[in-house]
Amino acid sequence: METGRLEAFSDGVLAIIITIMVLDLHAPHDPSFSGLQGVWPVLLGYVLSFVYVGIYWNNHHHMFQATKHVSGGTLWANLHLLFWLSLIPFATSWLGATHFAARPAAIYGVVLLMAAIAYWILQQSILRAPGGNPILASALGRDLKGKISPVFYLVAIPLSFVSRWIACALYVLVAVMWLIPDRRIEEKVISEIDDQSSPKA
Amino acid sequence: METGRLEAFSDGVLAIIITIMVLDLHAPHDPSFSGLQGVWPVLLGYVLSFVYVGIYWNNHHHMFQATKHVSGGTLWANLHLLFWLSLIPFATSWLGATHFAARPAAIYGVVLLMAAIAYWILQQSILRAPGGNPILASALGRDLKGKISPVFYLVAIPLSFVSRWIACALYVLVAVMWLIPDRRIEEKVISEIDDQSSPKA
Amino acid sequence: METGRLEAFSDGVLAIIITIMVLDLHAPHDPSFSGLQGVWPVLLGYVLSFVYVGIYWNNHHHMFQATKHVSGGTLWANLHLLFWLSLIPFATSWLGATHFAARPAAIYGVVLLMAAIAYWILQQSILRAPGGNPILASALGRDLKGKISPVFYLVAIPLSFVSRWIACALYVLVAVMWLIPDRRIEEKVISEIDDQSSPKA
Amino acid sequence: METGRLEAFSDGVLAIIITIMVLDLHAPHDPSFSGLQGVWPVLLGYVLSFVYVGIYWNNHHHMFQATKHVSGGTLWANLHLLFWLSLIPFATSWLGATHFAARPAAIYGVVLLMAAIAYWILQQSILRAPGGNPILASALGRDLKGKISPVFYLVAIPLSFVSRWIACALYVLVAVMWLIPDRRIEEKVISEIDDQSSPKA
Repeated sequence: METGRLEAFSDGVLAIIITIMVLDLHAPHDPSFSGLQGVWPVLLGYVLSFVYVGIYWNNHHHMFQATKHVSGGTLWANLHLLFWLSLIPFATSWLGATHFAARPAAIYGVVLLMAAIAYWILQQSILRAPGGNPILASALGRDLKGKISPVFYLVAIPLSFVSRWIACALYVLVAVMWLIPDRRIEEKVISEIDDQSSPKA
Repeated sequence: METGRLEAFSDGVLAIIITIMVLDLHAPHDPSFSGLQGVWPVLLGYVLSFVYVGIYWNNHHHMFQATKHVSGGTLWANLHLLFWLSLIPFATSWLGATHFAARPAAIYGVVLLMAAIAYWILQQSILRAPGGNPILASALGRDLKGKISPVFYLVAIPLSFVSRWIACALYVLVAVMWLIPDRRIEEKVISEIDDQSSPKA
Repeated sequence: METGRLEAFSDGVLAIIITIMVLDLHAPHDPSFSGLQGVWPVLLGYVLSFVYVGIYWNNHHHMFQATKHVSGGTLWANLHLLFWLSLIPFATSWLGATHFAARPAAIYGVVLLMAAIAYWILQQSILRAPGGNPILASALGRDLKGKISPVFYLVAIPLSFVSRWIACALYVLVAVMWLIPDRRIEEKVISEIDDQSSPKA
Repeated sequence: METGRLEAFSDGVLAIIITIMVLDLHAPHDPSFSGLQGVWPVLLGYVLSFVYVGIYWNNHHHMFQATKHVSGGTLWANLHLLFWLSLIPFATSWLGATHFAARPAAIYGVVLLMAAIAYWILQQSILRAPGGNPILASALGRDLKGKISPVFYLVAIPLSFVSRWIACALYVLVAVMWLIPDRRIEEKVISEIDDQSSPKA
């Protein structure tokens, strides 16, 4: 199966996930700036989650850039990823509504952890497709970021109960780590596609 | 008419249907885990409905993979299907809000039944298009799953009033039945397309 | 400019318009069927508006099927149409919340009227593009439905204050009129495209 | 990387941004026209923001019409733009809920300013891509509108505290300035593409 519609559907779901979080920014009826006080924690949570969904969209985009066909199993692995990502608005909302309390911070980490695992499963299902996906495989290399992120979440979740700020700092750290341009897939894909299209020198 | 825009529009509607159900997961202002108690039934209903919409997206995707052109009637058959699917968030919401009560469980079954009928009508409208759709027809075969599912719903609806849990178990059963990979269309389509493109050996 | 992205954006907006109306179907916390009583007028309004948005999507789809390039003015004419269509959920919501009262019925008609005018402007902007659009022009023919519909709305709006049911009946009538398959564009487009691709016999 | 999916995702987010503002138009339960009084300021704000998002969609559409490939940095510059645009519904909501009060008017200007800056960054990231983008560069020319708009916002923000109506008038003015058809890119792109495809006379 071609990837066009899987990408279109994922784009749709991710676009909605990233946007409905904004519905949680309730405009106060109070026209003074003090009316905005309750909005700050929600806005902060929104920024963090916006970046996370953006990272997933980016990685998803890169991964399917290097993939031409998918199996039925991959469709479900993708839906599984979208399921966990769809819980981000809820986790963000609880985090904001409770002003970054301990338990919501832990749950936020659980959702991020599950999304990371779901992404890994999706990646495996693509890599293990018949014929494999050498472009993606070589582009991912050791996939350090992908392997370290769940470890950070696993550390952050229990730490939420010690200090919710350390947990949140870890979530920010992982996001920043992914934000640092990851030209691996980009460059590898381009060069490998070039290699394939230019048969021999 | 080509199917591109019908698929894009359906993807959009399905993406929204699957995502707005998340808006029903209201984050409690209570930062303790007990605040999550009211969220559980809503979450369970969300998972079930997410899987159902995912199944419909999957089947829709497969069906139009095997279809190149559609008539005006098919556009409306498709909108009819989207209408019933768009009621799933409401049915799910009532199911969750009432902690899986009898009547909401019955109504949930009615919506699933109507969606299954609408899907069947859509499928017929494609199969009976001028020229037919031999790829889809042979891929569907006897279409056992498609024929059994409405029977399950029809049994579950009255059973809701006897035991809502039996009704819900039947809904889960049908979902699991569809989740089991259905490689029929996938493989048949691929092989038939191969047959057509390789004229004779 | 090509029409691809205009169609994709319009599909997105129409998909959201058609789906957010469902958010107005508030699930009651009452598990008995009497809890659904307040839902009926909202559901009825939803069905009517769903059909109207479906009709607009269908006609939009047909029109751009016959259009290859658009000007900047057409982009804005399209956004203008989307604006009026985006007020349908509000008008529907008021209609449902007031159990089809007179003034909401009149406002509903005003929104339908403005959408019809906006559609006509969009159609004109495509027909009057440099080079014209002979396929669309001949497909529309006298465009009877397009000309009669605004007249019906204009009659229905003041009649709302006499009898809201007559007004609503007129809205239903127009919808039914459009639902009756309109194979004009479909067939004409196909045959004209055939004519063009087969140079001369 | 190709721009297809970036455009599709942006279309999705912009379609949702433009449409969820409609959710703020709460239908009154009062069936008289006086029930609509509270709706007017919200509707006015909606119209203004609808036009702004429409302008961004239009410009975004034109810019990527002239762009074939994007780097990873551009993906993030685009997400950055979408972030600020996603705050427009919140700013609009506060503006409407407070009947265009001073502080909300200032915040509205801040969001518009940040979106304009984000758009400029995105534009730069495309212009400075390896190989540059001569078509876009020449089409933008001196990019007067793009340079003047932030100045207007910068003037309007402090003026909100003197007179909120002057601030709002400035926002309307900028919108009108962009609404006046900007055939620059459109024509230049078309002519330049023509130049490139017709090698020599």
